[in-house]
Amino acid sequence: MIILNLLRLTESQKTAFLNLTSGHEMIFAPDGRIEGEGIPVPDELYHKAEIILGNPPYEPLKGNHVLRYLHTKSAGTDRYEIPGLLPEDTVIQGAVGAYGHSVSEHMFAMLLAVMKRLPSYRDQQAAGIWEDLGPARTLSGAQVLCIGTGDLGASFARLCKALGANTAGVRRDPSRSAPGIDSIYGMDMLDTLLPEADVVSMMLPGSAETDKLMDSRRLKLMKKDAILLNGGRGNSIDCDALAALMADGHLFAACLDVTDPEPLPAGHPLWRQKRALITPHSAGGDHLSDTAYRVAEVTLKHLKKYLQL
Amino acid sequence: MIILNLLRLTESQKTAFLNLTSGHEMIFAPDGRIEGEGIPVPDELYHKAEIILGNPPYEPLKGNHVLRYLHTKSAGTDRYEIPGLLPEDTVIQGAVGAYGHSVSEHMFAMLLAVMKRLPSYRDQQAAGIWEDLGPARTLSGAQVLCIGTGDLGASFARLCKALGANTAGVRRDPSRSAPGIDSIYGMDMLDTLLPEADVVSMMLPGSAETDKLMDSRRLKLMKKDAILLNGGRGNSIDCDALAALMADGHLFAACLDVTDPEPLPAGHPLWRQKRALITPHSAGGDHLSDTAYRVAEVTLKHLKKYLQL
Repeated sequence: MIILNLLRLTESQKTAFLNLTSGHEMIFAPDGRIEGEGIPVPDELYHKAEIILGNPPYEPLKGNHVLRYLHTKSAGTDRYEIPGLLPEDTVIQGAVGAYGHSVSEHMFAMLLAVMKRLPSYRDQQAAGIWEDLGPARTLSGAQVLCIGTGDLGASFARLCKALGANTAGVRRDPSRSAPGIDSIYGMDMLDTLLPEADVVSMMLPGSAETDKLMDSRRLKLMKKDAILLNGGRGNSIDCDALAALMADGHLFAACLDVTDPEPLPAGHPLWRQKRALITPHSAGGDHLSDTAYRVAEVTLKHLKKYLQL
Repeated sequence: MIILNLLRLTESQKTAFLNLTSGHEMIFAPDGRIEGEGIPVPDELYHKAEIILGNPPYEPLKGNHVLRYLHTKSAGTDRYEIPGLLPEDTVIQGAVGAYGHSVSEHMFAMLLAVMKRLPSYRDQQAAGIWEDLGPARTLSGAQVLCIGTGDLGASFARLCKALGANTAGVRRDPSRSAPGIDSIYGMDMLDTLLPEADVVSMMLPGSAETDKLMDSRRLKLMKKDAILLNGGRGNSIDCDALAALMADGHLFAACLDVTDPEPLPAGHPLWRQKRALITPHSAGGDHLSDTAYRVAEVTLKHLKKYLQL
């Protein structure tokens, strides 16, 4: 069996992968370049690999009819869940748990920034203006609603709690608790909880189920001075509805690291909405140096379980 | 004895002040307007008051030759420490402890913002640009040096620790500990500690002693990719030296809520320095709604002690 490992690894992680898969051929190709040789992974290798660890490019993947297991570098696997892309029985798994630190800290930074009006102060700075913009907001005593309570949502909630917020969360299975979240509810409670929240944090994977979950009707259920964040997938908020409502004065701010579509098209009204703060899907990915390490650790754990099946 | 109370108070705080000063005449004039009448405090009242609670204007204060105790609304009392302004024996005390929450959260928001490159993303947003700006920073494992370990510095350190930072502090008396700060050193250790710090947080009161404490020489002792913050008084950093060093590529970022002078003059090079993030002395003051309450509580506590002397 050929295992293609596209991850960036430390020496000890490399050893751990080799120990786990002894008897099979593991080819290390961090970021898609064969280790040692520095050349891109040839298409025939993408065709022959039965296990791929990392995010392979689509084109050569189409020629693979033997793939049994794909473990992505990303937490979300939606980009590979395209009908016909992979052999039918391929098991796909994402590096869930590796991005909580990076994404939650980025979204938390965005939240605090808008609470303290830093984007507007930055706009003033560009014009050389020293002018007080009035009251700020605090997380102390704020009610934070987490839609999505997995690794990202729970990590984010924990940060908010550290600054004195109260946290609630909605998830499919409300019988499962999540660290950092005071009260967990089922998705059916969403419409009841939205009007109570000062901060609504979306950290959902991309799927048909989450598509436009936050539509115009639900956005209107939010407090007029609430803050909306999206650090999951762009499709879970109707960005056109959001832009229209914000133009009408609804919401204190929106912090968007993901949009629908991506990149946010030139001329989209959210670009000009001063109460929106937009970053280009940069909360996770490779933006923190420890993420690659965490991705490899999660992949090792998942691969071990898969091989024991 | 006439006591002039310029603070904004809740009803129960008003009662507490009256109970504390029974036998004396207390005049409530929140924000300098006589309560009930809505007219500005007349000059003769500023002249006659033996105790003033709040921040009175300079001019009428000059005519007061009976003032025994001034408790400011601000934490810093430097603005009233002008030779000849007050009678010689006047005791001056500031609302130390009331601003830690507001100032530390604001400075923490600025720190996280620059770590995640949010000011640069905001600049891009203004131009409609969706472009990844590369690696971000994290507080996890970062070494934070707090210069000034009073209410502001310690509150700030506590927030940094909640996100996994290691904290050190320098203060005049290193035998006194401070909550949230792992290791406390004397001011004589400053030059030794500066080269170790990823983040240097200045939260010092304004005084001759702190003037240009962070001069060109000390700024150069900082790591080239360190982050400098000032949430205390502008005079403790030489802003011209800072601007020159940053123009040469020194420092990852500077977060300044205070500058020297204030407002930062039009055309000052720090306005154009993209790696600087500037807010107009808006971290404290009245920016959080709970601050007025805290100011009154601290004032009550201090006044009680003063009256018992």
